[in-house]
Amino acid sequence: MVHSGGPPVTGRSPAENAQLALLLEVAGTPKPGNVDRERDLPDLRFEHFLAGAVGAGEGIRAAEAGAPVGEAFETAVARMSDQSGGNTQFGALLLLVPLVRAGAEGELSRDGVRAVVEATTVADAAAFYRAFEHVDVRVDEPAPDVDAPDVRRGADAVPDLRERDLTLFDVLAESAEVDGVAREWVGGFERTFSVAEAVAAGDGPVSDRAARAFLDQLAAEPDTHVAKQHGGGVARNVMVRAQEARDGNDPALVDAFAEALVGEGINPGTTADVVAAGLFVALERGVTV
Amino acid sequence: MVHSGGPPVTGRSPAENAQLALLLEVAGTPKPGNVDRERDLPDLRFEHFLAGAVGAGEGIRAAEAGAPVGEAFETAVARMSDQSGGNTQFGALLLLVPLVRAGAEGELSRDGVRAVVEATTVADAAAFYRAFEHVDVRVDEPAPDVDAPDVRRGADAVPDLRERDLTLFDVLAESAEVDGVAREWVGGFERTFSVAEAVAAGDGPVSDRAARAFLDQLAAEPDTHVAKQHGGGVARNVMVRAQEARDGNDPALVDAFAEALVGEGINPGTTADVVAAGLFVALERGVTV
Repeated sequence: MVHSGGPPVTGRSPAENAQLALLLEVAGTPKPGNVDRERDLPDLRFEHFLAGAVGAGEGIRAAEAGAPVGEAFETAVARMSDQSGGNTQFGALLLLVPLVRAGAEGELSRDGVRAVVEATTVADAAAFYRAFEHVDVRVDEPAPDVDAPDVRRGADAVPDLRERDLTLFDVLAESAEVDGVAREWVGGFERTFSVAEAVAAGDGPVSDRAARAFLDQLAAEPDTHVAKQHGGGVARNVMVRAQEARDGNDPALVDAFAEALVGEGINPGTTADVVAAGLFVALERGVTV
Repeated sequence: MVHSGGPPVTGRSPAENAQLALLLEVAGTPKPGNVDRERDLPDLRFEHFLAGAVGAGEGIRAAEAGAPVGEAFETAVARMSDQSGGNTQFGALLLLVPLVRAGAEGELSRDGVRAVVEATTVADAAAFYRAFEHVDVRVDEPAPDVDAPDVRRGADAVPDLRERDLTLFDVLAESAEVDGVAREWVGGFERTFSVAEAVAAGDGPVSDRAARAFLDQLAAEPDTHVAKQHGGGVARNVMVRAQEARDGNDPALVDAFAEALVGEGINPGTTADVVAAGLFVALERGVTV
């Protein structure tokens, strides 16, 4: 909105805070295993995340303006992908889009965002499946007990969704056990709001607080992206190593852990997604940069 | 724009490329004397630039949509300033806003942007003066031969501008000798397009190319921000040291120079502004991240 005549309005909107959350998340360092201000991965660099955050802006602003969650998410993912690094912020956007909707409605609480995700429709689910066609997201064979269509089918799954009347909430509920982002949707964004509280209670630069929150979260739960890529044993092992690195009270230990994970090709992406979501909530609640 | 039904459009718009240029500029390292991916200054941190780039988005999008240059610039500066670091991207925005207008009109050439700046009005000048009220920009006593009102007067200068029929182009022409950003306006964005060519001709990550372009530009001309803060002698000295650091062909020399400038509190901001503008042109011309 441009205000001809009057002075420009200040204060970031929910969409702007979401975009800033994506940037602060990737700027936080050390963030073991992930791209951060000090580390690139071989084919995934800091600047891919910058371009992803800029590209995602349109979809995030659509969510703020009232577009359906699925449509806003699909737009955000498609435009995020307009860089050569591949998937940078798919999971973070799946959390941020309903959070931005809740924020725009003035209901940014666990109940508020729960209402947004529970109101999703079959059309939202269809857009979510289409989003997979815009980006190369790590997806495995579905577990035998998962009842939703395989996301690898992309738009081909849409008739199935319609026939079975599956909403986006229904679809994500099916993978809540194996996917930490889906678990946030189903569980009222518990970790997201917990990260927001930790960031708000911290001090110093916000990106430093984000890095601390990342390590705490990595030490608290196995990262489901790591579990999908390397198996549950590796994910639990990373969790234990994160606890040791954190509890050693020596920044050099955390740095060494960060270097080791990069070397092993282990990339705790779900934990980063939850931290980005928590940063958004913290910014909306008045944490200042 | 959200396209209900059809697939999302890909490809960044001029406004998105401008926002990405701001981010790639600050991410480039080493960028001697300035905040970069590896260095913060005592009161001006990387994350202030991230928040500045996000905040500036609204004004940049207004420029793309056809808002007058002055109004778009004032909005961009006001919203950029919604962080605690102070002035992060004032000069870069003064270059980017007319470049985005030219890009949105499909005329992103030196002649195209010259036409945009030459078409600015007294109302644009008034918005420029008002923009100083939103941010703490380094401004000295005007030189005795400068005929435009002192920008430190902010909105109080507006009646003077109107009486003397001074456009924003006229105002900047008055300071072209002492201000490298104003010189771009008056001289058809010569350095901006030269940086764009260097970035396009380079290889590797775009933020690395930005850092190389920064050092080349710093070695080519005294930085006018340094001259305003520390005097012309210091600015010329920095230029010569930049030549030595670059021509030594040893990254350690450049790093040592970067550390030295930070230690001396010398901050070549105008050179960074020109690099951001050049990055924008390079992105618009197809350089990919």
